[in-house]
Amino acid sequence: SKFEYVRQFEAHDECLPHCWIVVRIDGKGFHRFSEMHNFVKPNDDRSLSLMNVSAEKVMTDFRDIVLAYGQSDEYSFVFRKSTTNYNRRASKLMTNLVSLFASTFVYNWTKHFPDTQLKYPPAFDARVVLYPSNRILRDYLSWRQVDCHINNMYNTCFWKLIQDAGMTTTEAQHRLKGTLSGDKNELLFSEFGVNYNNLPEIYRKGTLLVRSSVQETATKTVPNKNGDGTMEETFQRKRYITETLYTDIVGDKFWREHPEILGEDS
Amino acid sequence: SKFEYVRQFEAHDECLPHCWIVVRIDGKGFHRFSEMHNFVKPNDDRSLSLMNVSAEKVMTDFRDIVLAYGQSDEYSFVFRKSTTNYNRRASKLMTNLVSLFASTFVYNWTKHFPDTQLKYPPAFDARVVLYPSNRILRDYLSWRQVDCHINNMYNTCFWKLIQDAGMTTTEAQHRLKGTLSGDKNELLFSEFGVNYNNLPEIYRKGTLLVRSSVQETATKTVPNKNGDGTMEETFQRKRYITETLYTDIVGDKFWREHPEILGEDS
Amino acid sequence: SKFEYVRQFEAHDECLPHCWIVVRIDGKGFHRFSEMHNFVKPNDDRSLSLMNVSAEKVMTDFRDIVLAYGQSDEYSFVFRKSTTNYNRRASKLMTNLVSLFASTFVYNWTKHFPDTQLKYPPAFDARVVLYPSNRILRDYLSWRQVDCHINNMYNTCFWKLIQDAGMTTTEAQHRLKGTLSGDKNELLFSEFGVNYNNLPEIYRKGTLLVRSSVQETATKTVPNKNGDGTMEETFQRKRYITETLYTDIVGDKFWREHPEILGEDS
Amino acid sequence: SKFEYVRQFEAHDECLPHCWIVVRIDGKGFHRFSEMHNFVKPNDDRSLSLMNVSAEKVMTDFRDIVLAYGQSDEYSFVFRKSTTNYNRRASKLMTNLVSLFASTFVYNWTKHFPDTQLKYPPAFDARVVLYPSNRILRDYLSWRQVDCHINNMYNTCFWKLIQDAGMTTTEAQHRLKGTLSGDKNELLFSEFGVNYNNLPEIYRKGTLLVRSSVQETATKTVPNKNGDGTMEETFQRKRYITETLYTDIVGDKFWREHPEILGEDS
Ligand SMILES: Nc1nc2c(ncn2[C@H]2C[C@H](O)[C@@H](COP(=O)(O)OP(=O)(O)OP(=O)(O)O)O2)c(=O)[nH]1
Ligand SMILES: Nc1nc2c(ncn2[C@H]2C[C@H](O)[C@@H](COP(=O)(O)OP(=O)(O)OP(=O)(O)O)O2)c(=O)[nH]1
Ligand SMILES: Nc1nc2c(ncn2[C@H]2C[C@H](O)[C@@H](COP(=O)(O)OP(=O)(O)OP(=O)(O)O)O2)c(=O)[nH]1
Ligand SMILES: Nc1nc2c(ncn2[C@H]2C[C@H](O)[C@@H](COP(=O)(O)OP(=O)(O)OP(=O)(O)O)O2)c(=O)[nH]1
Ligand SMILES: O=P(O)(O)OP(=O)(O)OP(=O)(O)O
Ligand SMILES: O=P(O)(O)OP(=O)(O)OP(=O)(O)O
Ligand SMILES: O=P(O)(O)OP(=O)(O)OP(=O)(O)O
Ligand SMILES: O=P(O)(O)OP(=O)(O)OP(=O)(O)O
Ligand SMILES: [Mg+2]
Ligand SMILES: [Mg+2]
Ligand SMILES: [Mg+2]
Ligand SMILES: [Mg+2]
Ligand SMILES: [Mg+2]
Ligand SMILES: [Mg+2]
Ligand SMILES: [Mg+2]
Ligand SMILES: [Mg+2]
Ligand SMILES: [Mg+2]
Ligand SMILES: [Mg+2]
Ligand SMILES: [Mg+2]
Ligand SMILES: [Mg+2]
Repeated sequence: SKFEYVRQFEAHDECLPHCWIVVRIDGKGFHRFSEMHNFVKPNDDRSLSLMNVSAEKVMTDFRDIVLAYGQSDEYSFVFRKSTTNYNRRASKLMTNLVSLFASTFVYNWTKHFPDTQLKYPPAFDARVVLYPSNRILRDYLSWRQVDCHINNMYNTCFWKLIQDAGMTTTEAQHRLKGTLSGDKNELLFSEFGVNYNNLPEIYRKGTLLVRSSVQETATKTVPNKNGDGTMEETFQRKRYITETLYTDIVGDKFWREHPEILGEDS
Repeated sequence: SKFEYVRQFEAHDECLPHCWIVVRIDGKGFHRFSEMHNFVKPNDDRSLSLMNVSAEKVMTDFRDIVLAYGQSDEYSFVFRKSTTNYNRRASKLMTNLVSLFASTFVYNWTKHFPDTQLKYPPAFDARVVLYPSNRILRDYLSWRQVDCHINNMYNTCFWKLIQDAGMTTTEAQHRLKGTLSGDKNELLFSEFGVNYNNLPEIYRKGTLLVRSSVQETATKTVPNKNGDGTMEETFQRKRYITETLYTDIVGDKFWREHPEILGEDS
Repeated sequence: SKFEYVRQFEAHDECLPHCWIVVRIDGKGFHRFSEMHNFVKPNDDRSLSLMNVSAEKVMTDFRDIVLAYGQSDEYSFVFRKSTTNYNRRASKLMTNLVSLFASTFVYNWTKHFPDTQLKYPPAFDARVVLYPSNRILRDYLSWRQVDCHINNMYNTCFWKLIQDAGMTTTEAQHRLKGTLSGDKNELLFSEFGVNYNNLPEIYRKGTLLVRSSVQETATKTVPNKNGDGTMEETFQRKRYITETLYTDIVGDKFWREHPEILGEDS
Repeated sequence: SKFEYVRQFEAHDECLPHCWIVVRIDGKGFHRFSEMHNFVKPNDDRSLSLMNVSAEKVMTDFRDIVLAYGQSDEYSFVFRKSTTNYNRRASKLMTNLVSLFASTFVYNWTKHFPDTQLKYPPAFDARVVLYPSNRILRDYLSWRQVDCHINNMYNTCFWKLIQDAGMTTTEAQHRLKGTLSGDKNELLFSEFGVNYNNLPEIYRKGTLLVRSSVQETATKTVPNKNGDGTMEETFQRKRYITETLYTDIVGDKFWREHPEILGEDS
């Protein structure tokens, strides 16, 4: 129609080639959302598992995501450098991804929160960030994992002080002000008998989803040699699966053991 | 942490000021989604109402949307020119909006499709488009409504030929090839006794959601004059509501009757 | 060649359609440049005329510039809303324009500074700014002209205090601190007998270049009626010329008198 | 002033961090420019040297350019990955650079073209392109050098056929159609006795400007030991100079011999 000229106002937003494309999503107003749905403090296993299955669904549908990392109300998805998914259009990538995550979150709510009704549909924001080298991509992931560690340690202490030591939130904040990582470790151990390093890794490290391939033997039906019937034939195939890990990704160990994730070029 | 430098790789994406910001969303792969969930052809009232309540939720949460227009698996949301919502950051606007739409869609599924189970969580894409003048914004909306009209007329004929006249899809396509609007009108009337203009307006025009204000009288409790008690006092207030219309927005009539939507400047 | 893939890294930077495209250029380090070439203070007529011819050359070569405004070491060029020059590519527009301006500036140096050798080749920066409406474009131009006025009034006082009253720069700054426009007018008049409004308009208002068309009668040689020779025939043609004005563009008067510049749509 | 709000319409255009920033400039309409100024065909030494001194001036003023490569009417400038020049603002970088290049070109015209008057001031376009890795940056430079090679070989044959063999341009084009590199080599040798590889390297390879540092001994005046006078003291300092090379940059040799240019990270 004569109105079609308005399409020309749409912007081109293809991502620079040869960069890692990271889409990070984050729950909107999850402070309130977690209160309204009585999330366990500081870590609610139901919420963690619901976030994780939603992220797995995203990885299943977006075949070019090589790795995802989640903690709290956020998840980061890493597309391989050379992806041409949606022609690398930033808007397409982030909106399709975030809406799939959100709708999967609601879709699976009851399975993970069987006794809690979903009071309202949650929203998530998303952004695309480009990282030009493996080193910087690793620093990005380290940034998120260090953030997880710092928040989790703080929150663990905070809620212990309130739930077990009966402090008010103001008192707990005051008690923790200026404390370093070592101080908090010590506090947990001496005052609450908690060895921080024994807490579940999912709380301390966050969740890492890695796509990996497994070699498997499968069978197919083929015409038999006489040409007068069929027979079963076995063959080898690669299958992609998503592995879930709770592990350190700041140090070199993990990356040395999984060189295929980032590929050879640094 | 020393990793925070990675934030510098995030792009600034504030929209040009003083432009209408349109966010258009569109269902991903709804051809398949409508098949899988046995949508009535060509128009499924359940789908339309579910799309519409999801859009209403979006308008409720995003106070700066002045108008929304939906048809088929898509919806366009128009933010007022001078909005500072999310500081006009394009990514924030489109991702928060589309994820809210998608999660609301799933949240309300059962209410609108009581007899159909949701087979998988749907995704939607979204894009931000800027329109510098009222005239062009109107042309944008006209573009979408003309698209609705053309598709609906075609689909109405197409499915009549198949469902009532027993044609195959190929035959129906062939029958409609090269026909103009008038031909299709005639076909519907002479072959199926259908007066196209009597079909429900929601099919022919799509759905328009308009925020409008109503003046209402409310009461509040205030200290009484003696200062020894309280009294009820009535006062006037403006309340914003969302009106749903199925009406022509290509011509001038609607805009003349609702001058407040676009405001005075052209 | 196999290396051509590197072209894909070039960004698309087409300007949003239907917006005024303004390219503003500004001399790099002209504080130093004006010192090194002994510019008259506060206004050097040679510099002004050189800037102006350079801008005229730009208008001659870029046919879609409807208006240019210059003052000090800067110039703003306004392309018509619907220009498709260089397909509206921002980089192409600003770099071709600014390099033409700079090379013209050097090319014409000797004509305007016959007694001063050019010590080094100057650079200019440039930027593209989009304005979605006539009102905002006018506010942009007002911003530059008010800036001209404020700077010129300050500089006129400043250099009078130094050159005529023998103050040091520190004393002059101190004397002018906190003074308003009226105070400066008064100072010039009472202390130096200068009526600010009698100063040359080019200093007070800056320079406006407007493309306007004149109807003219021209002649061409055509075959004569007998077909056995030629004859001269007169005809009317529109010719575009650049008019130079030193006039107020903040108020409505100018725009009312030149409605063709911005055109009818607001 | 109340008009300052118009600054908000300026776009942010900082380049993605940690990428090589390449600014390529190219003469506007140099086909005509070279004709008008009677450039020697296919290569005019005066033009080449003028382009080269202009590029050297650019490298002198922009300290973060590590390398520049020029051929024909174009030049590419490579800023180091981590430059913060102009805060990495793309518009600032390309416009300041291109206008300096253009004004230097005019400034030095007479020195290089002593017998040819400059008929009009030339313009150059410029663009910013980002390259995320050393490998791709090298491919970019290879692209430009291979382009130089192909054009130069073609043009050398073309003008030989016209100037020495008396062909028309159409005949020359026809003669060269479909020929490969080897054919052209052979043609030059057998028909004109020219060994292509003996032509000046500047024609065949283009010009490479590399910033390199030399260690030098300098002297400064310092207070003497008795504190009653001064003495000369020698010290070591690094000085940056621009080296000019006509060499292959497609193969590995050059890069192996100059590892400092790109630095260690790939
Ligand atoms: N109790 C509890 N709260 C959680 C859990 N996971 C996340 N949260 C809450 C804690 C934080 O208040 C919030 C995440 O912090 P954000 O910085 O993302 O803030 P919020 O989502 O409120 O605001 P935003 O819209 O992202 O700016 O979610 C959990 O497992 N248990
Ligand atoms: N039967 C039926 N189908 C509908 C209805 N509303 C939308 N659809 C279907 C018809 C179209 O195949 C599809 C919308 O067309 P699109 O161009 O958006 O295609 P689709 O979503 O398949 O692909 P996309 O991911 O948007 O590129 O949705 C409805 O009420 N009834
Ligand atoms: N004496 C004198 N100076 C002038 C004249 N026109 C411009 N200038 C000088 C005064 C200012 O120092 C300078 C323009 O100010 P800018 O804000 O553009 O500063 P400048 O160019 O030094 O730095 P920039 O590279 O633009 O950030 O040029 C003139 O006619 N006479
Ligand atoms: N005779 C001669 N011509 C040269 C020399 N260097 C460059 N040129 C001419 C040959 C080409 O026609 C032209 C460069 O080609 P371009 O593709 O840049 O075309 P041109 O600048 O005409 O158009 P443009 O504005 O860049 O699209 O400059 C030279 O040394 N001698
Ligand atoms: O933690 P982030 O990245 O979401 O940081 P923020 O302070 O919430 O900033 P933003 O407005 O970019 O979400
Ligand atoms: O109808 P649209 O705007 O979605 O058009 P499209 O052809 O699907 O294009 P796009 O890839 O921009 O969604
Ligand atoms: O007067 P301007 O617009 O040049 O303002 P500035 O403070 O010099 O800023 P910029 O770095 O954008 O030139
Ligand atoms: O050789 P280039 O890169 O200048 O290529 P072009 O075909 O001239 O294209 P452009 O319009 O980008 O200058
Ligand atoms: Mg945030
Ligand atoms: Mg959040
Ligand atoms: Mg968060
Ligand atoms: Mg689409
Ligand atoms: Mg769709
Ligand atoms: Mg659709
Ligand atoms: Mg400036
Ligand atoms: Mg300046
Ligand atoms: Mg200035
Ligand atoms: Mg070009
Ligand atoms: Mg050229
Ligand atoms: Mg060229």
